[in-house]
Amino acid sequence: MALSTPASPSPPLIPPAFVERLQIETGGVFHCHCITVDLQALVERRGVRQGLLVAVGQHTTTALVLNENEERLLRDIEAFFLGLAPPDRPWLHNDLHLRQGIPPDEPRNAHAHLIAMLLGNQLSLPVVEGRLGIGRWQSVLLVELDGPRRREVLLQLIDTGGASLPEGRDSAFGAPP
Amino acid sequence: MALSTPASPSPPLIPPAFVERLQIETGGVFHCHCITVDLQALVERRGVRQGLLVAVGQHTTTALVLNENEERLLRDIEAFFLGLAPPDRPWLHNDLHLRQGIPPDEPRNAHAHLIAMLLGNQLSLPVVEGRLGIGRWQSVLLVELDGPRRREVLLQLIDTGGASLPEGRDSAFGAPP
Amino acid sequence: MALSTPASPSPPLIPPAFVERLQIETGGVFHCHCITVDLQALVERRGVRQGLLVAVGQHTTTALVLNENEERLLRDIEAFFLGLAPPDRPWLHNDLHLRQGIPPDEPRNAHAHLIAMLLGNQLSLPVVEGRLGIGRWQSVLLVELDGPRRREVLLQLIDTGGASLPEGRDSAFGAPP
Repeated sequence: MALSTPASPSPPLIPPAFVERLQIETGGVFHCHCITVDLQALVERRGVRQGLLVAVGQHTTTALVLNENEERLLRDIEAFFLGLAPPDRPWLHNDLHLRQGIPPDEPRNAHAHLIAMLLGNQLSLPVVEGRLGIGRWQSVLLVELDGPRRREVLLQLIDTGGASLPEGRDSAFGAPP
Repeated sequence: MALSTPASPSPPLIPPAFVERLQIETGGVFHCHCITVDLQALVERRGVRQGLLVAVGQHTTTALVLNENEERLLRDIEAFFLGLAPPDRPWLHNDLHLRQGIPPDEPRNAHAHLIAMLLGNQLSLPVVEGRLGIGRWQSVLLVELDGPRRREVLLQLIDTGGASLPEGRDSAFGAPP
Repeated sequence: MALSTPASPSPPLIPPAFVERLQIETGGVFHCHCITVDLQALVERRGVRQGLLVAVGQHTTTALVLNENEERLLRDIEAFFLGLAPPDRPWLHNDLHLRQGIPPDEPRNAHAHLIAMLLGNQLSLPVVEGRLGIGRWQSVLLVELDGPRRREVLLQLIDTGGASLPEGRDSAFGAPP
């Protein structure tokens, strides 16, 4: 009987998740790299319409920031954060002769660690109708704090399914101030 | 034959994810708005018992913070962050005559961008048994840094399924200090 | 009739998500606790190969940080953040006599709230091939800012499925600098 042997293959039972590693040669000691187009390209290459993109910088002296990619602001960022945590302060982490098992080329970069903690190093961003769910003036910036080096950002793209949203799934709400 | 036409609809094969946009008219130049009740209301309206709520402020001069909604602390937050990044410092981003293609009403708000980066602008919070998984004294605060304006927070609620957790799924563990 | 009573149980229609609570007795007023091994142990105990781990500190005076667990750097962290937000500044939140409904043992800890906001208190980290998706020198640190106390971190582990990745799912890409 045909009824017990359906012709169509089994549907997927779980949403796919894609993992990729974005590699970047950074451009200076302190340098902001806009990676928004790389993230959007991943979403499009995988054909994800609704989902979640998680990005984690894989280093202790880089940061991931969601803000504006404006050239003069990027220079303000550098001056401001280096002012908060100056490289030449007598940080304990920079006393290389007092630390065990470090390679001969170990950098003195305590300030870069501290700035990385101030800025954060991971972002979770929804994907809505095939686009990163960020605002018009927002960009995702990989901030190099102790470069230049080859750096890596781990990207995980979770497909939450659906080529389009049913009625009422994407709606605005709000309350008076 | 009845066997080939089941009365019940097919079950969902992937967890639903709901996307909504929370809109807020902010109340001042620098102002903290507690949005915890808005997030909890979304969870209840969608009937999600177990899931993940992702929130992303859609602006470069707002922040999303998980901390205490105590009136005097909110005033400390304002004084502290404006002290770290004073509005009237000669930020390069504020030299409007040196920037291309900006509208006539472009604000001088470099400090607001910098504070937004210090605080962060996205949060991922589990939903456990129908409640946001945050502590007793924690609130989700939308921080306006260059208002007042109409602002938007993108909310994505992923249903990870299950009306209740089976035995052993929610348990405490820990190690001696 | 056998057709209406299939012998095999229904397959899971949604990915499992596990919720656990990590409890820690913190070791000082300001103290960094590495919890990477606790998170990795959860991943292994649940047998998750591909997934997402979300961690949220359940307190307003703790932080969760992704950086290096190096003893001298941990001392730099303490000195740097207590320098940015000194405990003895006249914070409004510390005027206990002007606040309503607080217990007799309410601590004066405005600085700890402010540092918690600078550092952040939640992390989302992919799980790749059964391992936390972080870099060689990265650790997850629970930062106690007003201890010692018993603290709790809410952990949610979402299984995105798959014992191994099909071809092409985990790949490196990048662009020239």
